[in-house]
Amino acid sequence: MIRIAIDGMGGDYAPQAIVEGAVLAANEFEYEIVLVGDESSLKQELKKYQVCAGRLFVHHASEIISMGEQPVKAIKRKKDSSLNVAIDLLKKKEVDAVVTAGNTGAAVACATLNLGLLKGIKRPGIAITFPSEHGISLAIDVGANVDPQPDHLLQYAIMAEIYSRCVLKKRSPSIGLLNVGEEESKGTERTKEAYRLLRDSGLNFVGNVEGRDFFSGKCDCVVCDGFVGNVVLKIAEGITDVVAKLFKKEIRKNPIAKLGAFLCKPVIQAIRRDTNYEECGGAPLFGVDGVVIISHGGSSGTAIKNAVRVAAQSVQQKINHQIVTEISQNEKELKLDNS
Amino acid sequence: MIRIAIDGMGGDYAPQAIVEGAVLAANEFEYEIVLVGDESSLKQELKKYQVCAGRLFVHHASEIISMGEQPVKAIKRKKDSSLNVAIDLLKKKEVDAVVTAGNTGAAVACATLNLGLLKGIKRPGIAITFPSEHGISLAIDVGANVDPQPDHLLQYAIMAEIYSRCVLKKRSPSIGLLNVGEEESKGTERTKEAYRLLRDSGLNFVGNVEGRDFFSGKCDCVVCDGFVGNVVLKIAEGITDVVAKLFKKEIRKNPIAKLGAFLCKPVIQAIRRDTNYEECGGAPLFGVDGVVIISHGGSSGTAIKNAVRVAAQSVQQKINHQIVTEISQNEKELKLDNS
Repeated sequence: MIRIAIDGMGGDYAPQAIVEGAVLAANEFEYEIVLVGDESSLKQELKKYQVCAGRLFVHHASEIISMGEQPVKAIKRKKDSSLNVAIDLLKKKEVDAVVTAGNTGAAVACATLNLGLLKGIKRPGIAITFPSEHGISLAIDVGANVDPQPDHLLQYAIMAEIYSRCVLKKRSPSIGLLNVGEEESKGTERTKEAYRLLRDSGLNFVGNVEGRDFFSGKCDCVVCDGFVGNVVLKIAEGITDVVAKLFKKEIRKNPIAKLGAFLCKPVIQAIRRDTNYEECGGAPLFGVDGVVIISHGGSSGTAIKNAVRVAAQSVQQKINHQIVTEISQNEKELKLDNS
Repeated sequence: MIRIAIDGMGGDYAPQAIVEGAVLAANEFEYEIVLVGDESSLKQELKKYQVCAGRLFVHHASEIISMGEQPVKAIKRKKDSSLNVAIDLLKKKEVDAVVTAGNTGAAVACATLNLGLLKGIKRPGIAITFPSEHGISLAIDVGANVDPQPDHLLQYAIMAEIYSRCVLKKRSPSIGLLNVGEEESKGTERTKEAYRLLRDSGLNFVGNVEGRDFFSGKCDCVVCDGFVGNVVLKIAEGITDVVAKLFKKEIRKNPIAKLGAFLCKPVIQAIRRDTNYEECGGAPLFGVDGVVIISHGGSSGTAIKNAVRVAAQSVQQKINHQIVTEISQNEKELKLDNS
């Protein structure tokens, strides 16, 4: 049976939301869940729920890495943190995957340092799944590698393609390169070289895509450097906040509009459901030697449950094995082309 | 009297919206407006309006650069385009400023090649004004310079500060550097060096800002490279489109929500008014030797009128003279620091 460790103490609503997610996953899926963190808090929280027998275990870890801590320092100082202990279980193959909603930087650093990179992979990358007009899309990298080389971007595309095909169930997923215009000649030296690599890669490369294509679903996977990817991610979060605040402020002044907003509620809920990141199940950390899913800091129980689902799918589909095979294939082809 | 040339043929709704804007400006402000473009179309369009005597002139230009044309090729081939002719009037000092809603790349290339750069300026930059929670903010660069050096970013900050103070009427405008985290150590080599330059510049530098701060109004001027700035600009446009589409789609299914949306209309209009780019009046092209305002391609008459207003303010406040003085001052200080 697949065993998934969940970092019980990581996330804005830990341990409550995390424990809820662990219970939902244990009851809905046939996996073993290992909740890692402070035993007494986790057991206290678990008292609220009924769980299928033999499906959920608690593994003690005495320390917590908070959301604001400096990643590398934190993982080095807090050896017994829930994150370190969960990754350690994965390293020792006592579990098949780790899900964490904690400090993203710490998760990347901890996984990279302790698990190492997959054979042939030059840099890890964080992918996020996000709702677009035509279903779920994937963007990589959103912050692990702020100054990548063009060949890192090619590797990200290869990993994103495999994940989109095997976990997101897309047939022949299309790849777009984020740029400032559609023409091949646009952008920086990095994007120009990455364009050439992607065009010659055998991937379903649709060319450059622009900011406006991000949510339009023009391609299944958007490849970008971690600097712009991170800015985009945080902007998307920021814009909805600002619009919601402005809306609430104006509504307060106008009782008729207040009624109107009430009548619109089902529509807003439907949009929320259709564009719900909770259903996407978190962001795979690609390139490390082990399956690690990084969930949004504000993850609810449902989001954690879905992260467990995609973690298990990544294990079942042997994503990392496929990545190693395709990367090595690609390297061989590049050598042949250059010889 | 200040004379402003308007590119009558540039923009998605040219010449109708442009002519409307020219008329509004001529009637509201005491400036002379020179509409540049195909004489017969412009005069035909002008028949719809009454204009203050002696305020609006038409200057013929036989060619049009369309929105999709390759900028440098277009300005070289179409010497008699409305854009080239308008910039030429500025070069010959027959007008004091140019407003265009046409092809942005062509406007940047045409202005840079024909007017040249201001003394001491290394690269031109496009700024955009946008609504934030605390009023109008400015972002620079949004696409003129996709791979800038750190000292280009410092020059952008200096130019943005002067414009925010003199035209947007901000007292001691604050400057933020767009980055992937708040700490000084975050980001790329470019942002780390730009951070040091900005910190030591004497500007009101508030440090790194993140994507989420873009619309929160954390600083008056966001400085960024033209690659990320361009992506952000296009994402912001894209997100509203996607949300509007989803909303319309869901509303169609639900008559009660349709009524609700109707009741919310005044609130949505109020938000639109508060966050209306039309009021901002277009994006100044900084660093070229002449006042050039680039308006949104979809500009309405009101947007064009406001672009004329900020163009005239830039002339009155002698923005370019102030830029040359402050840049030379800054260079001297840098030399002193290094000697």
